[in-house]
Amino acid sequence: MLYNFTNDYSEGCHPSILQKLTQTNVSQQPGYGHDEFTQEAVATLRQLCGKPAVDVHLVAGGTLANLIVLGALLKSYESVIAAETAHINQHEAGAIEATGHKIETVPTADGKLRPQDLVALINKFPEYHTVKPRVVYISNSTEIGTIYKKQELTELYHFCQENHLLLFMDGARLAMALAAPGNDLTLADLASLTDVFYLGATKCGGLIGEAIVIANESLQKDFKYYIKQRGALLAKGRLFGIQFSELLRDNLIFELAGHANSLAQRIAAQLQELGYAFLTQPETNQIFPILPDDIITQLNQKYGFFRWKKMPEGHSAIRLITSWATPPEHVEQFLKDVKVLTAKAG
Amino acid sequence: MLYNFTNDYSEGCHPSILQKLTQTNVSQQPGYGHDEFTQEAVATLRQLCGKPAVDVHLVAGGTLANLIVLGALLKSYESVIAAETAHINQHEAGAIEATGHKIETVPTADGKLRPQDLVALINKFPEYHTVKPRVVYISNSTEIGTIYKKQELTELYHFCQENHLLLFMDGARLAMALAAPGNDLTLADLASLTDVFYLGATKCGGLIGEAIVIANESLQKDFKYYIKQRGALLAKGRLFGIQFSELLRDNLIFELAGHANSLAQRIAAQLQELGYAFLTQPETNQIFPILPDDIITQLNQKYGFFRWKKMPEGHSAIRLITSWATPPEHVEQFLKDVKVLTAKAG
Amino acid sequence: MLYNFTNDYSEGCHPSILQKLTQTNVSQQPGYGHDEFTQEAVATLRQLCGKPAVDVHLVAGGTLANLIVLGALLKSYESVIAAETAHINQHEAGAIEATGHKIETVPTADGKLRPQDLVALINKFPEYHTVKPRVVYISNSTEIGTIYKKQELTELYHFCQENHLLLFMDGARLAMALAAPGNDLTLADLASLTDVFYLGATKCGGLIGEAIVIANESLQKDFKYYIKQRGALLAKGRLFGIQFSELLRDNLIFELAGHANSLAQRIAAQLQELGYAFLTQPETNQIFPILPDDIITQLNQKYGFFRWKKMPEGHSAIRLITSWATPPEHVEQFLKDVKVLTAKAG
Amino acid sequence: MLYNFTNDYSEGCHPSILQKLTQTNVSQQPGYGHDEFTQEAVATLRQLCGKPAVDVHLVAGGTLANLIVLGALLKSYESVIAAETAHINQHEAGAIEATGHKIETVPTADGKLRPQDLVALINKFPEYHTVKPRVVYISNSTEIGTIYKKQELTELYHFCQENHLLLFMDGARLAMALAAPGNDLTLADLASLTDVFYLGATKCGGLIGEAIVIANESLQKDFKYYIKQRGALLAKGRLFGIQFSELLRDNLIFELAGHANSLAQRIAAQLQELGYAFLTQPETNQIFPILPDDIITQLNQKYGFFRWKKMPEGHSAIRLITSWATPPEHVEQFLKDVKVLTAKAG
Repeated sequence: MLYNFTNDYSEGCHPSILQKLTQTNVSQQPGYGHDEFTQEAVATLRQLCGKPAVDVHLVAGGTLANLIVLGALLKSYESVIAAETAHINQHEAGAIEATGHKIETVPTADGKLRPQDLVALINKFPEYHTVKPRVVYISNSTEIGTIYKKQELTELYHFCQENHLLLFMDGARLAMALAAPGNDLTLADLASLTDVFYLGATKCGGLIGEAIVIANESLQKDFKYYIKQRGALLAKGRLFGIQFSELLRDNLIFELAGHANSLAQRIAAQLQELGYAFLTQPETNQIFPILPDDIITQLNQKYGFFRWKKMPEGHSAIRLITSWATPPEHVEQFLKDVKVLTAKAG
Repeated sequence: MLYNFTNDYSEGCHPSILQKLTQTNVSQQPGYGHDEFTQEAVATLRQLCGKPAVDVHLVAGGTLANLIVLGALLKSYESVIAAETAHINQHEAGAIEATGHKIETVPTADGKLRPQDLVALINKFPEYHTVKPRVVYISNSTEIGTIYKKQELTELYHFCQENHLLLFMDGARLAMALAAPGNDLTLADLASLTDVFYLGATKCGGLIGEAIVIANESLQKDFKYYIKQRGALLAKGRLFGIQFSELLRDNLIFELAGHANSLAQRIAAQLQELGYAFLTQPETNQIFPILPDDIITQLNQKYGFFRWKKMPEGHSAIRLITSWATPPEHVEQFLKDVKVLTAKAG
Repeated sequence: MLYNFTNDYSEGCHPSILQKLTQTNVSQQPGYGHDEFTQEAVATLRQLCGKPAVDVHLVAGGTLANLIVLGALLKSYESVIAAETAHINQHEAGAIEATGHKIETVPTADGKLRPQDLVALINKFPEYHTVKPRVVYISNSTEIGTIYKKQELTELYHFCQENHLLLFMDGARLAMALAAPGNDLTLADLASLTDVFYLGATKCGGLIGEAIVIANESLQKDFKYYIKQRGALLAKGRLFGIQFSELLRDNLIFELAGHANSLAQRIAAQLQELGYAFLTQPETNQIFPILPDDIITQLNQKYGFFRWKKMPEGHSAIRLITSWATPPEHVEQFLKDVKVLTAKAG
Repeated sequence: MLYNFTNDYSEGCHPSILQKLTQTNVSQQPGYGHDEFTQEAVATLRQLCGKPAVDVHLVAGGTLANLIVLGALLKSYESVIAAETAHINQHEAGAIEATGHKIETVPTADGKLRPQDLVALINKFPEYHTVKPRVVYISNSTEIGTIYKKQELTELYHFCQENHLLLFMDGARLAMALAAPGNDLTLADLASLTDVFYLGATKCGGLIGEAIVIANESLQKDFKYYIKQRGALLAKGRLFGIQFSELLRDNLIFELAGHANSLAQRIAAQLQELGYAFLTQPETNQIFPILPDDIITQLNQKYGFFRWKKMPEGHSAIRLITSWATPPEHVEQFLKDVKVLTAKAG
């Protein structure tokens, strides 16, 4: 196979992380997040959030971040509202329910929640026979590559505030969202327009790690207990600290995300020129072009990607993902190949 | 501070791990444990276990390993039996109970369980008013530095077999146990004298990772679901794979454990010569000498360690831990300092 | 208010239950279901099931029965499939999720599941990223008053068998289903066409109690532990025993259900004659006629019922429920009132 | 068998309950605790507590009450402290752990907790590696028949207040405690010296039911959700309402408890006169005399009771329980039989 576009976690990590791990290897550091690298990463994130009072916790992965945050925010009879496409609903093997909570889902066209999606759920059957919604879960970028605009997030957050709901943003691909051409949000915006969000390293240049930011101060107390109880408080916190101290230095993480995005956008633009449609608006490093099945089959001999959805008339939507490490020349070759196949088919 | 003997996770990792991470950084690898390094680590462990049918899963930490394994092995009304000193009972913030299970504890002098400790618990009040014990949890080395001999493990395992109990060994410090001077167990023994055990990398030369070995084939089915559901199935499995492929090559992990053990044993031997007693038999890299409180206070200005337990007549037991990375010269300096302080006090 | 058609649990219980409680009040009985009345009830149910090997457990209510059975049948990563209208999905305040399990829902027109509804759910994304469906939950009669025919249940059960799924029937209103004019199922059929079902007393002439029947012998072991652990094993089992020993004597429960059904069917027939449509086929004691909103408002001054769903053009579906204790004269008066209001409106 | 002293739930209920159930049987009542009998019971309890702001909820049994209250009061990483003999620790099949919480136990001689028992547990290892105690669970009367004096409860409650702990009293046998000769507590005292307590009907003249009283107003919000989610919100709340409206009328429940206590005290006094010792102070309707094994064996042919504990020199402690319904003549016959056997043995 020439190149695998299946996901953005196929490669290792940005070299600066390995260099830092190597340089600092023999220094003795306290465990469980008290190491100096974690402290530096936390300080930088606080600065980027423009809010010294945010709490930051580094954990290993996205499902772990989701189950810890939701477990901490919800009382047993409270539910989380999410889009049907939400990662917590589709691809976490019931992790949220295993912490005891119902996910109430809403069908959406673009993977994004809007206030009108929530109205019915918060006006259900009267009290105590049904769960009580308490958290609204969104992903940015979403599981289908779209992003939230500042106006959208503002409306959603205000709706939450007015309805005693907490807003939680899954940021496994937040760097790509914030680095997207159409984005108008900053980390500082997130710190004032969500209650909790996280910024993922795994899919954007790190080996491991998600940085949970608890913006709402009333939710910060005892949070480390939840992390410990779910097995997520790791002895060598230095490993996580170094991911984020390096990726946050000089906005490296957003530069890497920009690289991933620009390659995907290049593919999208060229495919659109060739006349191909997309399942969702191509905005980040995940794009879902709709191609003829025979072209897909031929491309698949040379490139890895996920066949996402059967479409009418012998077409399918595929998912192409570019990463911080994707070599531009493989993208160019891919585009050349699509053009040739399209010409032949035409 | 000259040197910190508080734990064995203060330093980074063996350099070969960083080198391998660097060399293989750009190679695209499948996620979730399907990478080539994980495959190599699994193959080596199977070989060391002398049992190709064992299943191996790499997860991030010990609490995570414990809660996943116990959650997978226990039905909701079944309990796990453990020593009162057990890590799952004392230092996991209720992680096991959070998966719904009672820990039934047994007081012990040396942190080890023996068949006679279990008899009362399996002959309780008649059925369905009490929990039903199903798993016996042991640690090797234990939380207080002692190890299991082959004869002891054999008796315990047979007792479990006869009483419909599963035997699970927490191996966060298994490398040190197996590298201890008094040890007569091998990984192959563990694969036939336990149902599940794990081998920890975090405390013995790795950055992260515990290798869960499911020796009992009837427990292997669908195990990856449990890992995923607890948030422990990480995208970049290569990070875990490389820890273990490197540490298991040429038995590196046991060599590193031997280094840690030998330094602790050197301290123990010298302190015994000075007339000091120990809370438990010094067998591995964790030792618990009993010293006069004023000597402890003075040592503590130069060395880090944990004050474990107040003892009579102005003495305390302290916990000293050496690691794979402890420089011998610091140990020698520590011993020199103890001798001087002891002479002064005498 | 003249009469309340809101539900079928507004009245006490059939007088024979109170008489038996009174007659046997001073006899000393063993607790926790070992009393003679429970034994008698179990024996009768076994006989009615035509299968001496079924296990029977009496618990207090439907939500309790559902959470105990599903908790017992499911491993942590396994899910239950249900219709969107299912009681476990809508009206149990997240009780099933609180035991750790995801409910995967299917939209239906009539509240009933068919094999084709399940196909997509059992052919999802490949293993261990998603939950694994294991139980199919159905209600008979359903939450919207419809019933399963033998042919439908047979097809569903065979589909479950072929796909490693267990079939569980919520029978809070099973007596009404089996006493419905269109029914062709027996308790003996249920014992061979489900894995577990229950027969509810609360809504059909008892004060309290649901009789869980475990037809699948492989699921019977240790079931009482689950009951105890959920707080449902009550000391004075005699209270439950007497509900069922009396209600099962000479098929009293089905006679009572027949009474409830026939009154609802009488209302349905008359409303149909008046030209009114129904939200779902009126088959049992729960019917959902669609009436003009102003007629509803006027009826509501005299009769209690639930406004179920807004419909187009100033109509709504209401839910009318008759019970084992509903006096026929109130039904006649209700029909007279509807006729008058309809005539006025016409 | 002449009479069974095994427990206090062998008989039915006080006749006034059956009469009331019968008289009110056909009246239509709203479900889920909104019936008039429940309202009356709640009002009476509020009055007896001298505190109109207490919240009252009626549930079916003690284990259910315990798991609901503790589930509602504890965050996931918080624990409950209890005596080793506590019902929640010994006889609830892991019900509390199944809601996710650790029980931290304290050995006691008499089943009662005192402030000094709690000091070590609230001064453990520093934060987030261990669970955090939040609730102190006590039983009154205890599982071994003893009772709390006002002074003891006051000290314990103040200690809890000073240490951010909630005090919860299991009152499955509270009526017997409050009716005991040595008692100096009232329901009003409990409403100001506990955060939550319950008063049990099952063991003192009712068929079913425990009345949970939430004295601490900050704990009252949304409590009914917890009840519903655990399956404990039953449709025919009238059944529970009538238990308590009858038992609380003119203090009937305490009169019944007094009857049970006085018979047990009569046995205790006579056995003491015969020279027999007791495992714990005989204070209520549960007493634990220590008798020679051969006398026990002979008594057991005629009377039911539980052999509690082997004692030295061929003796055992047995548990004798009298109930609200125990006929005095059986007690007299029992005492006569013990005297004869004692004389023979002497």
